[in-house]
Amino acid sequence: MLRVETEFLPLFEEKLAAVLDGARTRSALDEPMRYACMGGGKRVRPVCVALGALAAGGDPLSERTAELAVAIELVHSYSLVHDDLPAMDNDDMRRGKPTVHKAFGEATAILVGDALLTLAARVCTEGAANHGAAFAAAGREIMRGAYDMAAGQAFDLAGMRTKEEFLAMYSLKTGALIRSAVRAGAVLWGADGETLAAAEEYASALGLAFQLADDLLDIGEQGSIVSAIGETETRRMLEECTKRAVAAAETLPASGPLSDYALALAARRK
Amino acid sequence: MLRVETEFLPLFEEKLAAVLDGARTRSALDEPMRYACMGGGKRVRPVCVALGALAAGGDPLSERTAELAVAIELVHSYSLVHDDLPAMDNDDMRRGKPTVHKAFGEATAILVGDALLTLAARVCTEGAANHGAAFAAAGREIMRGAYDMAAGQAFDLAGMRTKEEFLAMYSLKTGALIRSAVRAGAVLWGADGETLAAAEEYASALGLAFQLADDLLDIGEQGSIVSAIGETETRRMLEECTKRAVAAAETLPASGPLSDYALALAARRK
Repeated sequence: MLRVETEFLPLFEEKLAAVLDGARTRSALDEPMRYACMGGGKRVRPVCVALGALAAGGDPLSERTAELAVAIELVHSYSLVHDDLPAMDNDDMRRGKPTVHKAFGEATAILVGDALLTLAARVCTEGAANHGAAFAAAGREIMRGAYDMAAGQAFDLAGMRTKEEFLAMYSLKTGALIRSAVRAGAVLWGADGETLAAAEEYASALGLAFQLADDLLDIGEQGSIVSAIGETETRRMLEECTKRAVAAAETLPASGPLSDYALALAARRK
Repeated sequence: MLRVETEFLPLFEEKLAAVLDGARTRSALDEPMRYACMGGGKRVRPVCVALGALAAGGDPLSERTAELAVAIELVHSYSLVHDDLPAMDNDDMRRGKPTVHKAFGEATAILVGDALLTLAARVCTEGAANHGAAFAAAGREIMRGAYDMAAGQAFDLAGMRTKEEFLAMYSLKTGALIRSAVRAGAVLWGADGETLAAAEEYASALGLAFQLADDLLDIGEQGSIVSAIGETETRRMLEECTKRAVAAAETLPASGPLSDYALALAARRK
């Protein structure tokens, strides 16, 4: 396992719980917001914030890094809650438990997604106001990624057939938020242009590898690139992306955890 | 008419159109995002940002004031799109045209709301990164208000019976965003504590007066305070709130436009 993952994730989970506690409103959203965010998930995007911090020679275990990581996980969580809705993917189960709309009703699920996204924005703007310019610039990265992700959802809705259409959609729907996570971590720690470019190349390759690995684990599911290019070609692309991520990591200081994470994501069995 | 409204609104509409243009993604969200925001609406919250700027002796017609005003209108617009959804209020028409889900489908409407809220957060974080600390603090006000509004929606969903329950819900569902609009405008222009307190008192009274006036215009609609306390008492409260708003305005410099706006909102016929 990665040191950054084993050291960083407990700290992240604690911060996430604290942010959710501090955001209680005594409304019917308190419980389902926790339900949507806690206990489950690989926390890929928060780890990416920590890796971005590392890439820039920053501290992945600092309070501010954790705040950004919480913001991006809130964005990811909102997108899952809305994605699962009957009008969207209409999923009943997620991470082995009923989806938010199954457990709490559809109206509540819509509001829970809205509240999670708004809380992410609150964390970013509060950090910008409290911590100054570097945090503001990092928060901007997160919200730009979140915006591109919403466009990616719309492309997904429209449907894809060719390899190129899938790659364009993936680049937005999963890629944008992963890129913005790595970028946010790097920007928070004052990455220069060269470092940021290498971090972005790493994140682009990592984001696509992550999506392809997901698709290969879910073979037979509707709407994956495997249906367009086949399993063998998907596996070849996954290997290529992982190599690209590792190569990009090697141009950065503290490359070990970045390479290790790319290799671990590609090799995972769920 | 208010000078600030006639001078400010054309500038605001132009800025809103420019922000939406700059946020095009060539996805299926571009058109419905415009549809949801353009042509219609009283723009109460943007005007409140301008009034907040005035209250602090700032420039209501500056580029930055307009950016904040756009952010808060995007928040308001997202909330209307989601509020109208079948699982929520299930409304077919808004401002004399089909609601977003009627015109573009339910899945698109969910994503349009998400994208509008995310764009609001993007405007706030981009401004924080580009314009510095005062804008960051103002953006924080907006996102805090947006978060409280989401909680207010949840209380609304749960239903109210007593006067106190209605007032608590109104204070969040409509009040929070109006307070945060006035506060954001004032904070952007460096309001001191005393000014901010007076601006907040003005905004609280204005927000409730606005809601009560709405309820009186929609008598017979479900779920308004008129059903709990009757028309006469609602009218009395509206007068009292308007007086409170005017009294608070009078403690501020540039009180004229603030008083005028409170009086105009109370007297409107739709």
